[in-house]
Amino acid sequence: MFEHLLNPRSIAVIGASSDERKIGNVIVKNLIYFGYGGRIYPVNPKNEIIYGHKTYPSLDSIEDEIDISIITLPATMVPDAVESCVKKNVKYVIAIAGGFSETGERGAELERMILDKIRGTNTRVIGPNTVGIYVPRSNVSTALTLPERTALPGDGSIAFISQSGALGLLTMDTIAEFGTGISAFINLGNRIDLSENELIKYFEDDEKTRSIVLYIENFKNGRDFFNVAKETVMKKPIVVLKSGRTSEGARAASLHTGALASNDAVTDGALAQAGIIRAYSETELMDYGKVLAYQKPLYGDRIAIVTTAGGLGVITADYLVSTEKGVGMKLAVISDENKKRIRDTIVPFGSAENPIDLTADGSTEQYSRVLEILNSERNVDGIIVYALFQTAKVDETLIDVLEDNMKGKPMVVGILGSKMGKRMILEAEKRGIPAFPSMERTVKAIKVLYMRGRYLKRRYEDGEQGS
Amino acid sequence: MFEHLLNPRSIAVIGASSDERKIGNVIVKNLIYFGYGGRIYPVNPKNEIIYGHKTYPSLDSIEDEIDISIITLPATMVPDAVESCVKKNVKYVIAIAGGFSETGERGAELERMILDKIRGTNTRVIGPNTVGIYVPRSNVSTALTLPERTALPGDGSIAFISQSGALGLLTMDTIAEFGTGISAFINLGNRIDLSENELIKYFEDDEKTRSIVLYIENFKNGRDFFNVAKETVMKKPIVVLKSGRTSEGARAASLHTGALASNDAVTDGALAQAGIIRAYSETELMDYGKVLAYQKPLYGDRIAIVTTAGGLGVITADYLVSTEKGVGMKLAVISDENKKRIRDTIVPFGSAENPIDLTADGSTEQYSRVLEILNSERNVDGIIVYALFQTAKVDETLIDVLEDNMKGKPMVVGILGSKMGKRMILEAEKRGIPAFPSMERTVKAIKVLYMRGRYLKRRYEDGEQGS
Repeated sequence: MFEHLLNPRSIAVIGASSDERKIGNVIVKNLIYFGYGGRIYPVNPKNEIIYGHKTYPSLDSIEDEIDISIITLPATMVPDAVESCVKKNVKYVIAIAGGFSETGERGAELERMILDKIRGTNTRVIGPNTVGIYVPRSNVSTALTLPERTALPGDGSIAFISQSGALGLLTMDTIAEFGTGISAFINLGNRIDLSENELIKYFEDDEKTRSIVLYIENFKNGRDFFNVAKETVMKKPIVVLKSGRTSEGARAASLHTGALASNDAVTDGALAQAGIIRAYSETELMDYGKVLAYQKPLYGDRIAIVTTAGGLGVITADYLVSTEKGVGMKLAVISDENKKRIRDTIVPFGSAENPIDLTADGSTEQYSRVLEILNSERNVDGIIVYALFQTAKVDETLIDVLEDNMKGKPMVVGILGSKMGKRMILEAEKRGIPAFPSMERTVKAIKVLYMRGRYLKRRYEDGEQGS
Repeated sequence: MFEHLLNPRSIAVIGASSDERKIGNVIVKNLIYFGYGGRIYPVNPKNEIIYGHKTYPSLDSIEDEIDISIITLPATMVPDAVESCVKKNVKYVIAIAGGFSETGERGAELERMILDKIRGTNTRVIGPNTVGIYVPRSNVSTALTLPERTALPGDGSIAFISQSGALGLLTMDTIAEFGTGISAFINLGNRIDLSENELIKYFEDDEKTRSIVLYIENFKNGRDFFNVAKETVMKKPIVVLKSGRTSEGARAASLHTGALASNDAVTDGALAQAGIIRAYSETELMDYGKVLAYQKPLYGDRIAIVTTAGGLGVITADYLVSTEKGVGMKLAVISDENKKRIRDTIVPFGSAENPIDLTADGSTEQYSRVLEILNSERNVDGIIVYALFQTAKVDETLIDVLEDNMKGKPMVVGILGSKMGKRMILEAEKRGIPAFPSMERTVKAIKVLYMRGRYLKRRYEDGEQGS
């Protein structure tokens, strides 16, 4: 299921055009730009060559099997195009155009016509009113992005399902900055057929995917969603940014995607019960997806902080323990024995008390030894490390130290700064180390590991088995 | 006062060295690297040439007047060096070394010796235990940064006073990413003489400074601070990141800077009463400083949101109005008349209801007209604009539109994305437009404008005059 959506062997573009201003042109151009290696079939009654690909007058004039058919035609022409896809036994149809139920009853009628066409067939529809999919593993992007304006992330382990296309693209453009990758992006659009529920189920078994994040304005089928998610979270973490949580937001959502308002307290309770982490912004959504993809769950809330800048230790301690402006966890109390070992490792004016301050004289070697000690300390559940590359005695091999420590206790890394800091955060990404560019984001990330651990523990205690 | 600290005509470096591993070498190198245009006098008993500057055996062998003397010697040698500065009538001494009161009684005694030396003289001491100052306007940096590792911001309008040096440098390194500039950075260090209170007073009148931000673990003199700040805020906004607000944080602060714990509820009340905006992270500190420097206060809480991506409108509406996960402001209700004008401006499937959604078909021209309408709408106090440069009909001139609108109602801009988004956020910075790279940061920024407006209004109503 969905294998040929994410790894299509052939893609037809219905409404392909040699006119550069047309959607049907940009789609073909982007397939080539992103390096799609399968077979491309532009479909167009005129006999043309589009970016080196000869056009076909109709789908059935193509002898190949078609995995994905992208319909770039306007809304009123989509039902007929879908019919031709069904006849051709196309596996997935991506219907780009807007102008369906989001615009009123006439558009809703077009959606019903499409559903009639595919009922009882093997053809599945993504959308309509969608930017489609972006799948780094197979170099497929059906989105109408301008490459000189929008960056898309590389291959990674976060599966991203979004009801809104623009929100999805903007969020991906933003995370590309720090090198975070995704396993796949799917924009549900009006979601007349393919929904988040089936996709979650699919990503549960997708080898590349280690966490699933969703932007949702309303659930297609809330009960199913929570049932599916509750099963999936035992294998893979799920993060949801569910908007329309206020009456003002819900009203905006109804104008945006036609989402019906729901009681947010009920949603919130259901999300918690299903073990889904809730995000409140695009930043949290992707940060949480990332830390859960890269790092194991945290089963206790006693955190050690390691820094070479004392001020970061103080601010982080505040944010870690505060329940009002913070995440309400605990600052671990290091045993006297290990405190002594730390004191023997760091400079005399450093602090062996948690937050552990190596000072600006701290070295890569000291980071390494302190992390080793903390990994042996029974009063420590998880570790926040500020890997600060600005001082002379710290060098790039600190990244190797952090990579080694991925085998140890759950650890989240903060890396500040736009020069060497930025470079090393990109390096951390390459190695799957969860690193964040601010203190707040670092602390929130470790909290999320703990939320997941706490939830899994409860489910295990209830006698369930995860993997 | 402090004129020659921020615009020194001459700088002596006591303990200058030709040995590249020595602090006294790096300080001279950085003065040259950052392009300091005044006169540099390395002081060193050996007769050497350091980076083209001949050394002087002692301060009094220099015939010039000295505005700043940087002491790079270890703690025990600092009192004598200060004495030589006093004799030479040096205006400002920056004492870099640690090893003073933060390390115990012997260090505290050294501080008392320094204070004895300067008592009754015109010589002022910054530090000890400080990275000193960074002043873009005069290209002076006394910090031991490695330029290939740390970026420092350009000239700007935010004055940054920090008790911690490393926190200050890391924060500046981070904001350099998006082009935010500062008017000056001063690291107080152990703060035996020069304190935040005098500096706030100075920056109140400094023409380059439009907002003052502070990182503080404890106030040198809390009563003075609140008195000074309460006056200054009538002219310029002040933002404080006061850490040690939890008992865990306070304990860490006492180990870091020797800060005594204070009752945070009392601090919080005093900050509010003095009209000081409180930040809880380095990101908030600089974001708030920036928005307050670039934009006028907001005197009402009814906000209009403009976007080309509906999802951003929904999430932002939630975050704007929610009191739990959000800032508790109001979504403005646009009058029917202006709603009609907006409807006539945007595409049929867009939304003329607030949040106003131009859709991916939105153009620069439409942004411009909608902003014009909102500026004439009496139910709107302030505006959040998502300037999204990813779609084809929006071009770079949208920045000109935003710049024009800086004359209108208080407006805060969100610009997402790492490619054209990133480029345009840098462009916005150059023009003094407050732009932020995420929704949460954008909404928090407009809230801060409202907090300031609300405070000023109350003070005005109490019969006071600002400027």
